[in-house]
Amino acid sequence: MSWADWLAEQRAAREAAGLQRTLRPREPDEDLVDLAGNDYLGLSRHPEVRRAAADAALTWGAGAGASRLVTGTTALHAELERALAEFTGRDAALVLSTGYHANLAAVTALADRDALIVSDAHVHASLIDAARLSRATVEVVPHNRVDAVRSALAGAGRRRAIVLTESVFSVLGDAAPLPQLAEVCAEHGALLVVDEAHGVGVVGDGGRGLVHAHGLAGHPQVVLTATLSKSLGAMGGAVLGSHAVLDHLVNRARPFVFDTALAPAPTAGALRALHLLRAEPALPSRIHRRGGELADHLGVPRSAGAVLSVPMPSPRAALAAQAAALEAGVRVGCFRPPSVPDGTSRLRITTRAGLPEDRWAHALDVLTRLTRRMT
Amino acid sequence: MSWADWLAEQRAAREAAGLQRTLRPREPDEDLVDLAGNDYLGLSRHPEVRRAAADAALTWGAGAGASRLVTGTTALHAELERALAEFTGRDAALVLSTGYHANLAAVTALADRDALIVSDAHVHASLIDAARLSRATVEVVPHNRVDAVRSALAGAGRRRAIVLTESVFSVLGDAAPLPQLAEVCAEHGALLVVDEAHGVGVVGDGGRGLVHAHGLAGHPQVVLTATLSKSLGAMGGAVLGSHAVLDHLVNRARPFVFDTALAPAPTAGALRALHLLRAEPALPSRIHRRGGELADHLGVPRSAGAVLSVPMPSPRAALAAQAAALEAGVRVGCFRPPSVPDGTSRLRITTRAGLPEDRWAHALDVLTRLTRRMT
Repeated sequence: MSWADWLAEQRAAREAAGLQRTLRPREPDEDLVDLAGNDYLGLSRHPEVRRAAADAALTWGAGAGASRLVTGTTALHAELERALAEFTGRDAALVLSTGYHANLAAVTALADRDALIVSDAHVHASLIDAARLSRATVEVVPHNRVDAVRSALAGAGRRRAIVLTESVFSVLGDAAPLPQLAEVCAEHGALLVVDEAHGVGVVGDGGRGLVHAHGLAGHPQVVLTATLSKSLGAMGGAVLGSHAVLDHLVNRARPFVFDTALAPAPTAGALRALHLLRAEPALPSRIHRRGGELADHLGVPRSAGAVLSVPMPSPRAALAAQAAALEAGVRVGCFRPPSVPDGTSRLRITTRAGLPEDRWAHALDVLTRLTRRMT
Repeated sequence: MSWADWLAEQRAAREAAGLQRTLRPREPDEDLVDLAGNDYLGLSRHPEVRRAAADAALTWGAGAGASRLVTGTTALHAELERALAEFTGRDAALVLSTGYHANLAAVTALADRDALIVSDAHVHASLIDAARLSRATVEVVPHNRVDAVRSALAGAGRRRAIVLTESVFSVLGDAAPLPQLAEVCAEHGALLVVDEAHGVGVVGDGGRGLVHAHGLAGHPQVVLTATLSKSLGAMGGAVLGSHAVLDHLVNRARPFVFDTALAPAPTAGALRALHLLRAEPALPSRIHRRGGELADHLGVPRSAGAVLSVPMPSPRAALAAQAAALEAGVRVGCFRPPSVPDGTSRLRITTRAGLPEDRWAHALDVLTRLTRRMT
């Protein structure tokens, strides 16, 4: 088949399934309640965060100019890494350009053909891609099943083993049984890689994440990955762990070595957001209060994090509900295949701690009426 | 072997081979001639570029807040995509968070188990990783050998085939035979993916890149990838090609779909840098004048791009030369394994169009004396 025919056939199949996506640029001053984005704490547009990002661009330039190992590591990167490590209680941190890079770097630098990866069935696409790229043997285990992880590790033999999970899962919003997983990993000498993309800034004492909340921050076999683009309102990712693991990544992780450093503005923005979060440790609790309220109104299970999933009968129904909400001034997201582990389309609603009360109440009202009509 | 032992063993092996790397943070106001970074045109720190990046952070916030398909696509992204497509003469452009993402997105969305990838032996790590992640059959052909590409494509049978190359190669600085490769691809119905990371902003009419220079910008089977972090002084990557290819990527490229959008500041910085480049089309020619002068002084072949490679007898010799240059106020980079296709360590010297004449003359003098002493 020619490339042109193949591309046309692929598009036709997407359209037939209600899965065709297009990009819709937005303006900075939309008069909408945004419950689609991941700026859970409202820090991306906090005046001090904007100012810090702008100042960094003026001082350092629009880019870091090189990869981290050449001249791309600025004093800003070093300061952010110290602050992230201190905040999450880990030995050290390494900042990367995206959360996707962070997961790819951690997994591909540690796992190779001689390793076994045991992956929860619901982990994020970036961890799935990371496992595939590593060339390790990958065993996918049912979601949140510690016994299945134990069995898989028992079959590792002499191979180095790594278990992959998220702390708070991105689609269903449930939490991983981290203490049990850490125990099983310790028994078998395995590493536990925990993606805290939806955990840091959201759960645990002052938003320090679920690893910290369970007293696992000092655990030498736990490797944590995080994103700077959600609760910290900027862009980028990080890997947090022992000095030995991070030294290895600096030297061997291709998605780190062969990538220009994170630009100064988002680096400084994330750093300032982290300072603000430390100064206001009660901020993340507002996510849970509001998220609980919304879940109860919509009759869906509460989320461990900031993302609430509302199952929809089809991709088209999800789109219709999304359009109806938008009509009423509330922007929500959709999960459609391939972004869902079980093929069920959902509305994706993020709880926003920073939203004024009246706008939050309006959103609550719109979404409650909408889902009553839909179900 | 335990993880602790394995990490220690890996580090000891790096140290024994002279390949251990560490991060060295820099300050914004270093009094050095920087010939290590990739800000070839000096646009990263151009006052207008800094101002545009800062203004974007103030207007939009430190981050885009979501993935491109949710609410991460701002009017800035759309404007940058139009400007990039127009500049390079392509139908459309898609902006991603890094150049690594751009290569991963292009290759993994187009190639699958049923595809054949024919890859030049010297392509960048991100294209190698992309090919591996795609799960396609990968055939690596000797560097810049059109006949080998033709033979490989002749064996593709009914498989969709993709040829991977760079326009200007990152390590050796030589150019790919693009017209011949495009012809062979057209004969066999294959796509040609050209990484212009070191081409756009550097070669061709006003820096429009090597694809444009060869009259291939309108070629429907050529897919171009680029970076916004080198000559354009910011951060990010782009894929440029037909509407059909880019529509496919928007829907299917996991490194695009599952990634937060590029932050507003580097997006606006790259856009302003592109405007400046269009306003001063002679700027890239200064790279070639200076690069030629430097190559002649050092007795090495001229580069097709902005990166000059000076072979060194060993990784340690490369580090010693780098340290000596730094002592004299000139920062240069090193290529050491695994960043070199042939295992030979090199000094990596980038030509900087924006450097004042006296500082350039000083660097020329330092490097000439240094390499005479080394060889």
